Amino acid sequence: MSDEHGTIFDGLIGGDSSQWAFGTGFEDPLAGVDTTVPDGVVGADLAAYCLMLGDDALVMAQRLSEWCSRAPDLEEDIALANMALDLLGQARLLLTRAAAADPGIVPVLPAGSPVPGEDALAFFREAGEFRNVRLAEVANGDFAHVVVRLLLFSVARLALLERLRASTDQVLAAVAAKGVKEVAYHRDWAGRWFLTLAQGTDESRRRLLTALDALWPYQNELVSLHPVESRVAEAGAGVDPRSLRGEVDAVLDQVLAVSGVDRPDRAPLAGIGGRTGRDGMHTEALSRMLAEMQAVARAHPGGRW
Amino acid sequence: MSDEHGTIFDGLIGGDSSQWAFGTGFEDPLAGVDTTVPDGVVGADLAAYCLMLGDDALVMAQRLSEWCSRAPDLEEDIALANMALDLLGQARLLLTRAAAADPGIVPVLPAGSPVPGEDALAFFREAGEFRNVRLAEVANGDFAHVVVRLLLFSVARLALLERLRASTDQVLAAVAAKGVKEVAYHRDWAGRWFLTLAQGTDESRRRLLTALDALWPYQNELVSLHPVESRVAEAGAGVDPRSLRGEVDAVLDQVLAVSGVDRPDRAPLAGIGGRTGRDGMHTEALSRMLAEMQAVARAHPGGRW
Repeated sequence: MSDEHGTIFDGLIGGDSSQWAFGTGFEDPLAGVDTTVPDGVVGADLAAYCLMLGDDALVMAQRLSEWCSRAPDLEEDIALANMALDLLGQARLLLTRAAAADPGIVPVLPAGSPVPGEDALAFFREAGEFRNVRLAEVANGDFAHVVVRLLLFSVARLALLERLRASTDQVLAAVAAKGVKEVAYHRDWAGRWFLTLAQGTDESRRRLLTALDALWPYQNELVSLHPVESRVAEAGAGVDPRSLRGEVDAVLDQVLAVSGVDRPDRAPLAGIGGRTGRDGMHTEALSRMLAEMQAVARAHPGGRW
Repeated sequence: MSDEHGTIFDGLIGGDSSQWAFGTGFEDPLAGVDTTVPDGVVGADLAAYCLMLGDDALVMAQRLSEWCSRAPDLEEDIALANMALDLLGQARLLLTRAAAADPGIVPVLPAGSPVPGEDALAFFREAGEFRNVRLAEVANGDFAHVVVRLLLFSVARLALLERLRASTDQVLAAVAAKGVKEVAYHRDWAGRWFLTLAQGTDESRRRLLTALDALWPYQNELVSLHPVESRVAEAGAGVDPRSLRGEVDAVLDQVLAVSGVDRPDRAPLAGIGGRTGRDGMHTEALSRMLAEMQAVARAHPGGRW
């Protein structure tokens, strides 16, 4: 059938049709980008750093996408799904970058499974190999919970991405330049809803304060320094998260002040034996999330289902 | 905090902050569009017609969004989420149009619940009030199932939207003009994956044929005429679905031929007492979907959760 949209298989039939026998999954999202590891950066460190930022985005995207069709109205349903998609896109690029920087971190699959590196990293790592902050993995609560989590997350991520645009790594610089626009919207959405719930009904304010109290201890992990981050920042390819503290505190203080909410008096979440989410130390919530997220891919490794 | 993205509350503080106490949900997605019911069309018919096309999109969007984080790889995860978002956007406009064309169809909520018409229609109707085709509501199966369903759905919807651009109703014409571009991509995605699975492994082909056989009987409902469609088409505001049959058959035949798959020999799904999905006659799958989709909104009607 040829209509104004062209034949449905334009560019397919008569071309190299063999690729389609395996779907479109082989497109390299970094095609055309300079993926040379910059001078002074160790490939394994750059890969671990990309996993940290990529896993933050991947796990947050999962939690946001669980809200698909559960938001209080169609407009917010669309907003949440859009934000999940933004973060999923960031995750895909960062995991691809991680695999390119150090192929050794990519899980080895059964022989003959044609799975790209970013998918192997997303679907075939165990919880202890994920490097996201624990704030991203906490199980979903009510709508106030998703608002508070997204506020804490995006305030820190926006401050990070702004600085990361100057990375000596071309891929990270490009990911950051695109991400700044996306996360600026996320932060704005979360800030507006924070104010809305704070000034809404007694019930909305009560729920907001409950969520803020529960999530506040997780915020610290976003602005703490891991040795990998230290080395990558030192070499000019990354950002020292401690340098974000001034901006993060100022933005959060502004949101709290305008909403008439006190800064919670909660101690930061402790690591376990000095280890945090950045080291693969996670809560049970992550294991449960991964069990669901990885089920289809693992049932048919390379099977293109 | 004022940075390059502006104060987080730009345009909010000092403005009419009272609106924010109820969130942003009141934005009218049809603001600025001429919503006069065209001459010769009965408002109640136009509303019912918009529900048919809107519910098709809403229920399909739900089924696609259930794939969030369950697709076989990140690229398809993103593609499925994007397509769900496209359809959710179409649904929102069409439900808003339905509420404007006949306010009498909007469910009455507890006193004082400030819920826009499209949300009341999405979250406070019972299954028997939904007018979608049953193809959209069938419970999800495997990846081949989502491919076949989307192919059957989008081949017919694209043919419909192409013609609907000439609607005498300004809203429907605008929704169609935007939707054509979106659904052209959906059809292409589904067609390519259909071929991929047909020519892939024995397992992928077996699954594809199973899904095709199961879903084929539902296809007929998309190209059958309901009295409401008849009257709205007669008045120039809608499209007679029977006029789509030539194009739908031709496109499906092309996809089947290139994939080496025979047209299934399955009878169309029967109505019950002459009634179909367009009349609110649905399978249990829709009730189960709505129970989940409507839970949050119903727990707090107008509560902005």
